[in-house]
Amino acid sequence: VSECDCTAAGTFTRNTFRSPSVDVSEHNVRTSPIRAIIANSGNANACTGENGEKDVRFTTQLLAAELGIKQSKVLVCSTGIIGVPMNMRAIEKGIISGVKKLSSNNWEKAARAIMTTDTFLKISSTRFKIDGKTVNMIGIAKGAGMIHPNMATMLCFIATDCAIAKRPLGKALRIAVDRSFNCISVDGDTSTNDSVIALANGMAENQNIKTSGKAFDLFSRHLKKVCLDLAKRIPKDGEGATKLIEILVEGAKSDDEAKTAAMGIATSTLFKTAMFGNDPNWGRILAAIGNTDVAVNKEKSIVWIGKTVVFKHNAPSRFDAAKLSNFLSKNKEIWIKVNLAAGKSTCTVRTCDLTDEYVRFNANYHT
Amino acid sequence: VSECDCTAAGTFTRNTFRSPSVDVSEHNVRTSPIRAIIANSGNANACTGENGEKDVRFTTQLLAAELGIKQSKVLVCSTGIIGVPMNMRAIEKGIISGVKKLSSNNWEKAARAIMTTDTFLKISSTRFKIDGKTVNMIGIAKGAGMIHPNMATMLCFIATDCAIAKRPLGKALRIAVDRSFNCISVDGDTSTNDSVIALANGMAENQNIKTSGKAFDLFSRHLKKVCLDLAKRIPKDGEGATKLIEILVEGAKSDDEAKTAAMGIATSTLFKTAMFGNDPNWGRILAAIGNTDVAVNKEKSIVWIGKTVVFKHNAPSRFDAAKLSNFLSKNKEIWIKVNLAAGKSTCTVRTCDLTDEYVRFNANYHT
Repeated sequence: VSECDCTAAGTFTRNTFRSPSVDVSEHNVRTSPIRAIIANSGNANACTGENGEKDVRFTTQLLAAELGIKQSKVLVCSTGIIGVPMNMRAIEKGIISGVKKLSSNNWEKAARAIMTTDTFLKISSTRFKIDGKTVNMIGIAKGAGMIHPNMATMLCFIATDCAIAKRPLGKALRIAVDRSFNCISVDGDTSTNDSVIALANGMAENQNIKTSGKAFDLFSRHLKKVCLDLAKRIPKDGEGATKLIEILVEGAKSDDEAKTAAMGIATSTLFKTAMFGNDPNWGRILAAIGNTDVAVNKEKSIVWIGKTVVFKHNAPSRFDAAKLSNFLSKNKEIWIKVNLAAGKSTCTVRTCDLTDEYVRFNANYHT
Repeated sequence: VSECDCTAAGTFTRNTFRSPSVDVSEHNVRTSPIRAIIANSGNANACTGENGEKDVRFTTQLLAAELGIKQSKVLVCSTGIIGVPMNMRAIEKGIISGVKKLSSNNWEKAARAIMTTDTFLKISSTRFKIDGKTVNMIGIAKGAGMIHPNMATMLCFIATDCAIAKRPLGKALRIAVDRSFNCISVDGDTSTNDSVIALANGMAENQNIKTSGKAFDLFSRHLKKVCLDLAKRIPKDGEGATKLIEILVEGAKSDDEAKTAAMGIATSTLFKTAMFGNDPNWGRILAAIGNTDVAVNKEKSIVWIGKTVVFKHNAPSRFDAAKLSNFLSKNKEIWIKVNLAAGKSTCTVRTCDLTDEYVRFNANYHT
């Protein structure tokens, strides 16, 4: 809950079967200043029919009444099982007791409350000066897979006291999300409830930030930093994962192609199982790139695993496979680099390995 | 080896890093009648640079010389590890001894010779009459994953004594492959060497088949039957798989959208792990469809697992979850049906479950 109205921006899942809470939140972000976000974990309220829609309306109504604000100023986010009716008694109780406990020191509790299969808290904050005024920014996120065992959803809430209008906030958020949350993958499945929401209430009293200029660039850089910081922790906390894998594609023809190639590797089941097995199996990296339609100058392309060149100029490189396998087994963070030699664009994507623990975890969870 | 020249048609992987053997085979299919196919397993000869190209040339040269035919009449297919130089001594020895052992009763031996991680033979044959002449058709295939543990490749060879010209053969093969081999997925990874080749040598002495008409339709139907028969056995033999899963999407706006929706489900990691866990977790089916861009009339859409309706008209259905879980655990072949209620197109895609055995198999295989 913000002490005063916030300008708001949000990016929301494009899944056809998204939750009615996402529809309502997207509508309210577009049409109204925002004062509050309410999130529940355990139930995604997706594919729940008309009752699901009623439940979202009831939730915004009750919270608005308890806070004495307009219903349109409330955003709703749900994360959890798909296709099960909400327990509205619990929501009702939670709203009434939650409003009584509001405090400015609750960020960590909020971050903990939205966790589902997450194994660690995801909080990031930053502080910077604009017009001599100190601006604070904090973000919390949850997510250990694009979809969890029936507990869908990546959620992220970012709050700042910066004074910034709706359009520049939306622009900065789109830029930040595009190269942070939209550049991670755990299992390739996108949930029905993914939402990233940024609220700015202006209490820092800086001059209102416009859509371009030095102040916008500074704000944008900090928002990106917070988003990236949170986004990295999601594949690091991927279900069953033993490794965070950073994939840098450079020399791509366009930004889109750089991302397509990097995502091609990050979503390859066989690449991800090879990483789990500490196997420097670079053939799977090339096969994954080759399945995308991106331009590759094969004669000049290079692939690295860590700092080791494994493929260069359309031919295998000599390398010490045992040593490289050892590097993979000893490190919790692995870097893959690919130079497509077809242009100047780059993109970094983050993923995790695919383990038997992931499969058991998601197979053994029963509806 | 055919006793006389064959008209030939082929569909080949579009992977950027495909083997030079694929390039040569595609070129020869396009420009020359064909007499022979040579295949090796154990080495994909992909990402092997200039030496790999030389090795393919040497292979076609030697086989052509041994058979006393033109080099352009030879097709080469390789399946196995990526990025490792070919053992040309073995190829040379194999060609010389193989040519001596040619016999019309060797189909089963050939089908066995091309297996890598396959656990059973994949042969299918059919016989039909055109102009009172008996036409024979036989196909052999290998594949237990789109990519195997470094042993890439789905290969399929179909031979017929039917008299059919190049264009109608190509047309019939494209139609057959589109709804058979192009409608299966084990792990979403496409190999660097996938090839389906059809050869027709005309020894049945029927009237040469044209690109349309009754004879074409009959031939096309039989080719489709052989392709579908072989294609089904690949996910059934998927690495670590415990179940074959058939996914029928109906009521789609177009054929493309039907296939996109069915493939969306077939490649969802979470759907596949749920099937392994015998979990009727239909939320994952909807989330997978929702991530594709296909048109869905949510208010009229229906989802079945087996014969049980699990989701209907945008709301969950009541069903006995324990009974449905039991159905999933008792059957080796599972059917999923989705009606998108947005049109009249349908598509059936076949896949298998994702198991911890698959992950261990692919993680523990070391380069």
